[in-house]
Amino acid sequence: MSQQLALNLRLKDGSSFSNYLPGPNREALDRLRAAVVAAATRGEKAPGNMIYLWGAEGGGKSHLLQAACRLAQELGMAPVYVPLAEAAELSPSLLEDAETAPLVCLDDMERVAGRADWEAALFSLTERMRTAGGLQVCAANVPPTNLGLKLKDLTSRLAWGTVYALQLLGDAEKLEAVRLRAHNRGFEMAEDVVQYILSRYPRDMRSLFELLDRLDRASLTHQRRVTIPFLRELEAMSVEDAGSST
Amino acid sequence: MSQQLALNLRLKDGSSFSNYLPGPNREALDRLRAAVVAAATRGEKAPGNMIYLWGAEGGGKSHLLQAACRLAQELGMAPVYVPLAEAAELSPSLLEDAETAPLVCLDDMERVAGRADWEAALFSLTERMRTAGGLQVCAANVPPTNLGLKLKDLTSRLAWGTVYALQLLGDAEKLEAVRLRAHNRGFEMAEDVVQYILSRYPRDMRSLFELLDRLDRASLTHQRRVTIPFLRELEAMSVEDAGSST
Repeated sequence: MSQQLALNLRLKDGSSFSNYLPGPNREALDRLRAAVVAAATRGEKAPGNMIYLWGAEGGGKSHLLQAACRLAQELGMAPVYVPLAEAAELSPSLLEDAETAPLVCLDDMERVAGRADWEAALFSLTERMRTAGGLQVCAANVPPTNLGLKLKDLTSRLAWGTVYALQLLGDAEKLEAVRLRAHNRGFEMAEDVVQYILSRYPRDMRSLFELLDRLDRASLTHQRRVTIPFLRELEAMSVEDAGSST
Repeated sequence: MSQQLALNLRLKDGSSFSNYLPGPNREALDRLRAAVVAAATRGEKAPGNMIYLWGAEGGGKSHLLQAACRLAQELGMAPVYVPLAEAAELSPSLLEDAETAPLVCLDDMERVAGRADWEAALFSLTERMRTAGGLQVCAANVPPTNLGLKLKDLTSRLAWGTVYALQLLGDAEKLEAVRLRAHNRGFEMAEDVVQYILSRYPRDMRSLFELLDRLDRASLTHQRRVTIPFLRELEAMSVEDAGSST
């Protein structure tokens, strides 16, 4: 499975610890990072380890899971990232030998809660990883006890690990996070540009980062810096596009 | 200085351990990576550490130094990367408080060898880092004793560390390295495309990676996949450009 899921992991321009703005989530970041380093450096006989992150959409759960995978790759490990939001296209049998990886990240756990086949596969994997000694990192929108799992043993296994509730960023932190992401992509955004965006566009982090992607491409295509006038032109263009398609 | 030099460090799409194809240089990679992890996790009283990498242009020295910095950033450190090839634009006083960083990478050492002001600043920094306990990584095109340094003490300090001679990649490894880099940038290049490139373009890694950059941009601008027909069109276009500019 690793091959296939590794390909699934789009790390381009990607989510890393150094471009995650921790804000109120510093402790979760530090703990997760230390666990990845420990997984890379510890002996084979070390016991398994589990970290469970939960919080609302846009709180950076997927970012942290992918950052953990990226760091693991940098440390020479072959991590596995399973986006359970895509469970419809995946089979639980995918997890069959996942415990051979030193790091397994299971994102969007809530998407398979209540499905007997997935729950059984996840419980089995969790047991095998505890024996194999790897690091298992789970993310969901609710804490383990609220997942509505049918397998009570799986609930207690998940709660047995270190559980962190991720907090959403405040507005000033969002501004900083957008500028950090832009900087890491190689372009600079003035503060007034970011404030313009925050005042006119959806302010959850996912939408903001998607907007950043589009701006980066537009900036490259038009060979223009990202300024407020350029943003206004792009808005006008997309209105025209919408008009001409009706 | 850190602020300014950190900005100098263009990590976009960048050089990392996971996109370095080690080929014959596996030991140097492993040793460097372990030293960065050790620098991030060891106590403050640990002694300083020095690694010196040397080899011909295109052997991946800068890649490894930037990979070390990237990993250090991921581990929460603020590393310093000094491109001594740009010494003409830099002042030796830049190094004045570099030892406060847990990792200092000095690239292209040969470019300042023989210059008394730089040699004195580098020797002083090396002494301070040994006391401060950081990791110092140097790269040059020749081993320490062949740098032609006037300061013999600096030569012996550099030789006192772990010294690795980096080997150039063979043709099959170059092909793999180009495909790996393309994959990490988010586009796939078929083997025949890479072979076409290797047979017609300069085959040192720097030229190959610069070509990859241009192809990535062209692919995005023209909304085309990178195939041999597309490459031929681009070649024809650049010939026309050259013709029209005369």
